[in-house]
Amino acid sequence: MSKVRVLSFAVSLDGYGAGPDQDLANPLGVRGPELMEWFSNTRVWREMQGQEGGETGVDNRMAEMGFHNIGAWILGRNMFGPIRGPWPDESWKGWWGDEPPYHVPTFVLTHHARPPLEMAGGTVFHFVTDGVESALKQAKAAAGEGDVRIGGGVSTIRQYLQTGSIDELHLAIRPVPMGSGEHLWNGLDVRALGYEVAEHIPGERAMHVILRRRADRTA
Amino acid sequence: MSKVRVLSFAVSLDGYGAGPDQDLANPLGVRGPELMEWFSNTRVWREMQGQEGGETGVDNRMAEMGFHNIGAWILGRNMFGPIRGPWPDESWKGWWGDEPPYHVPTFVLTHHARPPLEMAGGTVFHFVTDGVESALKQAKAAAGEGDVRIGGGVSTIRQYLQTGSIDELHLAIRPVPMGSGEHLWNGLDVRALGYEVAEHIPGERAMHVILRRRADRTA
Repeated sequence: MSKVRVLSFAVSLDGYGAGPDQDLANPLGVRGPELMEWFSNTRVWREMQGQEGGETGVDNRMAEMGFHNIGAWILGRNMFGPIRGPWPDESWKGWWGDEPPYHVPTFVLTHHARPPLEMAGGTVFHFVTDGVESALKQAKAAAGEGDVRIGGGVSTIRQYLQTGSIDELHLAIRPVPMGSGEHLWNGLDVRALGYEVAEHIPGERAMHVILRRRADRTA
Repeated sequence: MSKVRVLSFAVSLDGYGAGPDQDLANPLGVRGPELMEWFSNTRVWREMQGQEGGETGVDNRMAEMGFHNIGAWILGRNMFGPIRGPWPDESWKGWWGDEPPYHVPTFVLTHHARPPLEMAGGTVFHFVTDGVESALKQAKAAAGEGDVRIGGGVSTIRQYLQTGSIDELHLAIRPVPMGSGEHLWNGLDVRALGYEVAEHIPGERAMHVILRRRADRTA
C-alpha cells in the first residue's frame, strides 16, 4: 500500500534539521551543509550531480532508499526557495536548475498561488495554497501505487507529524552540534504521536534511524 | 592535566537525558531504562552487579572508558535520590546499596546540608550546598591528578555546560524516542558554548559521540 514517508532527513546531534538564517547563499541555513555530509559523499549524490565516484557504503545504500518507489513529493516553500511573501514574478524555479532531482509531481506548500511549473526530467511543481491536508490528498492521488515522500523542511515535517499523516521516517542523525536553527522535536512528543524505532543502522557519517507509526495508531 | 568530563551519558533520539516523573520506582524517570539499554547489556555493567557474562563490543569499551582515571564525581541531587526538600533523616544513602559504584569522593549538589556519608568500597558522599562552582572546586581538589566526572542528571550537566566548565562529553545517542522528560539541549546553544565533535563511534545499541570544547574556548 502506498505510504507517506520522510526519507534521508538529516538531524543534528542536538535536534536541528536546518541551520539558522536560510537565504540564497545558504539554502540549508548557515552550517546546514554539515547536516548533509553523510549524503554529499555518496555515489547517489554524485550521480545526481553528473559526477563519477562517491562512496558506496551504508550511507549510500540509505540514500538510494530515498528514491525508491516515490510517486510524488511534498516540499515546504522554504525548501523550494528563499523568497518569502508573494511571488515577485515566475523566474524562481527552485534551487536545482533546469532538471530537479524529483522526476515526479512535486507539491509545494505556499500561501501564494502560482501556475504549475513543468521542468526537465519529469518534475512538475504544483503550488498548493489550501493547506497541508489538501497537498497530501493531491500528492497521494498523483503518486498512485507509489509512496509520497515529504522532503521537508522542518516545519513541513512537524505539521505532518502533528496531523498523524506520516507512516515512516528515516532520519540520519549526524554527530554534529548545530546549536541553533530549525528544531525538529521542540514541543513535539513523538512517542505520544505513536512513533517507535523499527530499525537503526550505523552508517559512515550518520546513525540511520527508521521510525514507524505503531499499527494501532495508523489510520 | 586533570579534566572535567561527562561520560557514558545516554540521550534519546529526541534529546532527552531522562524520562518524566522520576520517583522511587523510576530512578531514571518513566521509560528511562530504555536510555540505559546500551549500558545494561555490557560486561562492565554486569560486573558492577556482581554478575557473569555481558557483551564485550564497542558499547562495553565505551562504558569502560567511563571509569578510567576518575578521581571524583559530581551528582545532582535527583541522581542521588528521589527525596525533594529537606532531608527527613539520614536513612537515604543513594540508589546503590551499601557499596556504590563510585569508589572515590562524590559531591552531591543539594540545597540542604547533611554530614558526609562514608560508604563501603571508598565512596564518600559530600553534600554541597553552596553551588555548582563550589562543588567543582572541591571535586577538583579531591580528584588530584584524576579527572572529575559529572555523572548527571540533565539539570546538573546543563548548569556546568552553561558555566563553560566541561572539557569533554561522551554521549551515547540512543535510537529511541523519549517524547517527554528532561531535555538536554532545549535553549542551550552547544556550538556557541564552544563544543565540537571530536569523534563518533557506532556502537551496538547507541551512537557514541565525543564532544570537546575548542582549545580557544578552554580556560
